Amino acid sequence: MALEEPLTDSVAFLLAKLGQLATLRFAEGLAPLGLRPRHCAVLGLLAAGPAMSQLELANRIGVTSSVVVEMLDELQVLGALRRIRDTTDRRRQLTELTPRGTTLLRRATRLTRKIDAELLAQLDPGRAAELSFTLGELAKAHELPGH
Amino acid sequence: MALEEPLTDSVAFLLAKLGQLATLRFAEGLAPLGLRPRHCAVLGLLAAGPAMSQLELANRIGVTSSVVVEMLDELQVLGALRRIRDTTDRRRQLTELTPRGTTLLRRATRLTRKIDAELLAQLDPGRAAELSFTLGELAKAHELPGH
Repeated sequence: MALEEPLTDSVAFLLAKLGQLATLRFAEGLAPLGLRPRHCAVLGLLAAGPAMSQLELANRIGVTSSVVVEMLDELQVLGALRRIRDTTDRRRQLTELTPRGTTLLRRATRLTRKIDAELLAQLDPGRAAELSFTLGELAKAHELPGH
Repeated sequence: MALEEPLTDSVAFLLAKLGQLATLRFAEGLAPLGLRPRHCAVLGLLAAGPAMSQLELANRIGVTSSVVVEMLDELQVLGALRRIRDTTDRRRQLTELTPRGTTLLRRATRLTRKIDAELLAQLDPGRAAELSFTLGELAKAHELPGH
């Protein structure tokens, strides 16, 4: 009945389980800030560039417009962003980060460093750096948000 | 406004996103078999050892008893397992894999190999093996199911 290589040794299974763990830690750490993991890609995109339309955000993050609207509403309640009119096209609404949004993103970023340190505590620094680099390559290859 | 190292470059974020991708691919591939990703840890545990009680399964997988009961009910409907009485303690109910369960696990395992090949297609074999090894170490360090 033995299977040559157990399913739990596959990269797919390992990524799924470690991803769950990372998301759980991230969600726990973000909760006191009023943030959820899914908000962070939005904050990151808005911090990196100029004000963006909802459609641009939805395309970049890879979610539907209605999900983006929901996330923007939640972030606006936190005072993390504001909606402004596009000066070149008055019908178009853009979203930009507020100083509060920048502060929240900075805290979330610091939190990910803390979680990384905990997750990778048992690896020597060279292997941890190698892992980080390889995961970044995979994210690029599969066109994940921010990569 | 630039943040030194974007949050999306953290290992936590990368694991979360790649984990979502792996889970999605796994769920899509399992659906025609009537299985869900969470069933696979149960099938794997039952295939690896002797019949187990619900409590043992719950402890090994790291979920509550009620979640295990739900999963066992779903797997029993698929004909993947049967519940038997412990011959040394008649009050105790054990669960064991049926031949159908073994077949389903074999198919799920083959599926994870296919997903791994797709996920890792852009990495050279040495780096893919290194990644697999390092993720296995992390799974052990954080006591994930099957590790």
